[in-house]
Amino acid sequence: MFSVPNSELQKVQSRLEQELFERVIPFWERHSLDSTYGGYFNCLDEDGSVYDTTKHIWLQGRQAWMFAKLYETVQPEQRWLDIARLGIDFLRNHAITENHRVYFATDREGKGIQIQRKIFSECFYVMALNQFGKVSGESIYQQEARQLLEHIWNWSKDLSLVGQVAYPGVPPSQGLAVPMILLNVFEEIAGPNWSDYESEITTCITEILQHIDSDRKIVFETVGPNGEFIDTIDGRMLNPGHAIEAGWFLQHWAQILNDSSLQQLAFDMVDWSFERGWDQEFGGLYYFLDSEGRPPTPLEWNMKLWWPHTEALYAWALNYKLRRKESDWEHFTTTLKYSFKHFSDPVHGEWYGYLNREGVRTHRFKGGPYKGCFHVPRGLLYTLQCLKEIGKGVV
Amino acid sequence: MFSVPNSELQKVQSRLEQELFERVIPFWERHSLDSTYGGYFNCLDEDGSVYDTTKHIWLQGRQAWMFAKLYETVQPEQRWLDIARLGIDFLRNHAITENHRVYFATDREGKGIQIQRKIFSECFYVMALNQFGKVSGESIYQQEARQLLEHIWNWSKDLSLVGQVAYPGVPPSQGLAVPMILLNVFEEIAGPNWSDYESEITTCITEILQHIDSDRKIVFETVGPNGEFIDTIDGRMLNPGHAIEAGWFLQHWAQILNDSSLQQLAFDMVDWSFERGWDQEFGGLYYFLDSEGRPPTPLEWNMKLWWPHTEALYAWALNYKLRRKESDWEHFTTTLKYSFKHFSDPVHGEWYGYLNREGVRTHRFKGGPYKGCFHVPRGLLYTLQCLKEIGKGVV
Repeated sequence: MFSVPNSELQKVQSRLEQELFERVIPFWERHSLDSTYGGYFNCLDEDGSVYDTTKHIWLQGRQAWMFAKLYETVQPEQRWLDIARLGIDFLRNHAITENHRVYFATDREGKGIQIQRKIFSECFYVMALNQFGKVSGESIYQQEARQLLEHIWNWSKDLSLVGQVAYPGVPPSQGLAVPMILLNVFEEIAGPNWSDYESEITTCITEILQHIDSDRKIVFETVGPNGEFIDTIDGRMLNPGHAIEAGWFLQHWAQILNDSSLQQLAFDMVDWSFERGWDQEFGGLYYFLDSEGRPPTPLEWNMKLWWPHTEALYAWALNYKLRRKESDWEHFTTTLKYSFKHFSDPVHGEWYGYLNREGVRTHRFKGGPYKGCFHVPRGLLYTLQCLKEIGKGVV
Repeated sequence: MFSVPNSELQKVQSRLEQELFERVIPFWERHSLDSTYGGYFNCLDEDGSVYDTTKHIWLQGRQAWMFAKLYETVQPEQRWLDIARLGIDFLRNHAITENHRVYFATDREGKGIQIQRKIFSECFYVMALNQFGKVSGESIYQQEARQLLEHIWNWSKDLSLVGQVAYPGVPPSQGLAVPMILLNVFEEIAGPNWSDYESEITTCITEILQHIDSDRKIVFETVGPNGEFIDTIDGRMLNPGHAIEAGWFLQHWAQILNDSSLQQLAFDMVDWSFERGWDQEFGGLYYFLDSEGRPPTPLEWNMKLWWPHTEALYAWALNYKLRRKESDWEHFTTTLKYSFKHFSDPVHGEWYGYLNREGVRTHRFKGGPYKGCFHVPRGLLYTLQCLKEIGKGVV
């Protein structure tokens, strides 16, 4: 068992606290609030100026969740609760349709722009309402969240209900994203009182585990109905950041359920995905890889994006907390150094989001259609909480 | 008036002939033919090996068109006609549905995988059938092409007919892609005998011209119903390669219609888009820019892709042929040098498709879901034909 010197732990903790509370959260507090129409501006340039007023609902939900989480876990700042409410009101007034679908985007005033044939807008809506209800003490929010979650669960079992078309040439398959996001939603909604959702949670865990090939030490994004390998572009695709995030979602459940074999599988997901996904030449986590070394086709396959790094940061802190391996701390430090060197912006705050393989920044904005107030503050907050527990000797 | 020395013209011509007939066409002849199920493998690794057997229909149509065009304009090689027929039979047997929609992709055997809410699969299907009918002398193909074109035209005027949803928050707008691709289809179908499609062609040209802001020397991808500027991510988006391609599509019609003011606008589209789109620091054409210097959000905005360069190559050769400006030839040479240095593969043939801003290759494959046997051979063939005419003194 390896033990990080307390002085090092303290140093890292201070660095993360400074980043989260002086550079990241203030950026969103200063620049994102739409006091006229409610909700948040999420398309923000590097200096925080608004370059598009579209409201992307994943990010509205995630930001409302984030501020309610800060209120709950850091300190009950009224300002944070007000910011959360700004998003919650916008979501409830504008983002949801009569059919319980949630828009992917609305215009500034809240008129719908797009609905995806996916269920993730709904998931982040549920997470936001639930967390806000938890801290505001108003029960209506958690009731609404649980009601919508029931729809989401039904849709997730038959995606034709949200408009996905089953064409004759598409072989049956299952993706990692749906069970993994749902498992995180159940953690938020149910937490340790998980018996209300026992069968759903078991289903999600079973489905996630079908993506793991333990012989080859690979986590696949897409597999057949029984976990079979599919030899196509999609079937061979690996998304190391996603698998690492799924790893810590699963680890949280391994702890709640006190299941040691699940704990080991969750460790494996992180170990293998980081090992395979880290670029030995230039550093950073690749976005996509092909399991057989075939050429990946997505535009961003070898780019380094912010969120796989925030997920890896927390996953290594968590794993170190649970098993105290020296290599966990080394990987944590490697991820931390790379992230702070390449993504952090000490001038304007928040993190940049996109680098090329070599680590040169390719995109200037801090907020865009898929990047908002979520992965950076959540990763920093969770890591901080974890380091504090390590310092206290909590396992 | 500037005149390129004949020796230089000859040298470039030989280089392009070698590229087209020894490196590009043989690559597809050797690696892409599916003699078992018909059609073409279009997901080909750098050495031509097949890494996915999905058949992307844009590329099936475009390859069939390309081989029929080679048969018509280079020499009547039976092999080329047979290759075209392999694609045509697959398209007619598998790619089209009862409702006249054309799949975006099928599996290897031809079972449908995806239909887009766009009309481009249909456009490339029409181009392929028409060109094949022209060279095979069998009238059924051109009849079918014209019938489908009628459907496409109707859909293009009301995209809800192909499933696009009009959400309340989306302001009315028009894109460059639809009128520009249709104008090229009409050139193929009608050519100089354009009176059958006079009103459609006039509409396409009018719509394309609404994307030009002559005061600011900008060609926008998306504008309001009367050409108004839209101040959003999409409204500010410029796609220099697309505007250059639209420039030479329009130039062909300026010549057919003998319209000198249209000719000037087509020159302008190429001049302005190249000037604005060429990366002065690292060379190559940016993929997307924001007209107001705001941060572009697409992943590939500063990447250098193969097709804007093949389009620029031909556009500059054409402009030089028509107006003999020294700067046209300089831009032609700049584009040629950059393209051959970065995209060409003398070892395996065909061109690589994707570079980062700095010119480092990011993707290894030669064929993928959006890259097939089309832009490289079409660009080289048209440029070659143009250089021959320049050599003969044709204007």
